[in-house]
Amino acid sequence: MHTQIQILPVTGIGDIRPGDDLGRLIYDALKQQQLTLQQGDVLIITQKIVSKAEGRLVHLDDIEPSPFALQYAQRYQKDAQHVEVVLRESKRIVRMDHGVMICESHHGFICANAGVDESNIGGERVLALLPEDSDRSARQVRQRMQELTGEGEHLDFAVIISDTWGRPWRNGQVNMAIGVAGMEPVTDYRGQNDPYGYELRASMIGVADELAAAAELVMGKVDRIPVALIRGYTYKTGQGSGRDLIRESATDMFR
Amino acid sequence: MHTQIQILPVTGIGDIRPGDDLGRLIYDALKQQQLTLQQGDVLIITQKIVSKAEGRLVHLDDIEPSPFALQYAQRYQKDAQHVEVVLRESKRIVRMDHGVMICESHHGFICANAGVDESNIGGERVLALLPEDSDRSARQVRQRMQELTGEGEHLDFAVIISDTWGRPWRNGQVNMAIGVAGMEPVTDYRGQNDPYGYELRASMIGVADELAAAAELVMGKVDRIPVALIRGYTYKTGQGSGRDLIRESATDMFR
Repeated sequence: MHTQIQILPVTGIGDIRPGDDLGRLIYDALKQQQLTLQQGDVLIITQKIVSKAEGRLVHLDDIEPSPFALQYAQRYQKDAQHVEVVLRESKRIVRMDHGVMICESHHGFICANAGVDESNIGGERVLALLPEDSDRSARQVRQRMQELTGEGEHLDFAVIISDTWGRPWRNGQVNMAIGVAGMEPVTDYRGQNDPYGYELRASMIGVADELAAAAELVMGKVDRIPVALIRGYTYKTGQGSGRDLIRESATDMFR
Repeated sequence: MHTQIQILPVTGIGDIRPGDDLGRLIYDALKQQQLTLQQGDVLIITQKIVSKAEGRLVHLDDIEPSPFALQYAQRYQKDAQHVEVVLRESKRIVRMDHGVMICESHHGFICANAGVDESNIGGERVLALLPEDSDRSARQVRQRMQELTGEGEHLDFAVIISDTWGRPWRNGQVNMAIGVAGMEPVTDYRGQNDPYGYELRASMIGVADELAAAAELVMGKVDRIPVALIRGYTYKTGQGSGRDLIRESATDMFR
């Protein structure tokens, strides 16, 4: 029998400040909601509160824009200091047109503005950068929460750090997984047979991205719901990484 | 208070044959599971059973491959008749490399092989094409089910036809929405303020794609779960179309 999956918003997580103990805050918020973390749960956390807790914030007034940033900003009526931050977070510019910068971040993620974001920061002229290592962030929250439950490693659940990105060819941004702990983010059906005995050739499913997308449905942009809990999904446990979701350049035709 | 969202697999839908009444089959399957369609439900249906019911099947032996299909197939050890079907379903080839064809289908969807698929068909050398008009397919199933409940248009629920596609830059395919009825597939937060009063500039969320992605979590590739029901999500009702999710070429840097 196939069980249902539940997507639960985790409410009551207030403003996050650099140095905050995110694991503790989420643990307390769950408790407040009378939710107890269970074996097999998946906790999805938006990048923004992770970046805030880790102090990954940049004050634009501290930034000296390069000549390149200055001329690009002038051409598209943008903030040169903001452009400079995006450039510094980028390993490579994938496309730069119509005033849009699609960048490859130092982590290898390809997205607009290298993931540098300016909404929901709560300060003027402050930008949030992506976490330095979102897998590490996911692992830290996971370990901290395992500790707080008193069950330690016996409580096997997964953590996903997510961000909301646009895509080529399609309108609308969707939530995606950038950091992972406790699960394999890609399910590989290759070699298995479909119900008709046909061997599935090219079926690798980006389940962590699908979990992140599902979580966004309870988060919303204008609500204060930075965390969601997904219960009832059977993922493959393991030491997966958000990097498993990054396509190798050799097989990528759109770099 | 934010309510939880449930993702429910719809089981017991057997083999689909051309001419089958999909609305009736899904209605009966829900009933069998003691599920009653409710106001605000979202029903996600995989493209494959829609294509089958609509007879969108091609027998490879009936296909005469063109010289172009023949030489390409030879070069990459592919089936020339299969290649020919993909070419016929394509308006344009976006990329053609490493033996992979990324095509723009006649509908405007950009995906591998113009959405032509060979798994889960249950016949040798038979391919399924995308539905001719997935919005129409969604509308038809919706109307049929409204009729069967006896409530007609008073029962306002949404239908999404989905398919599983790969993406540039990221590993793993994810489920996406190709046809929509009864809802707006993109939520527009532009002009609204975030909790800090910052006006959200670029927040259009592809919620129908997120709903499709969420549904895949109960479907799986090797299970026979071609339909999922999502309950508890507040979508924007309307006459949206799967085409709303297709980015205009003018703002697309990866065509």
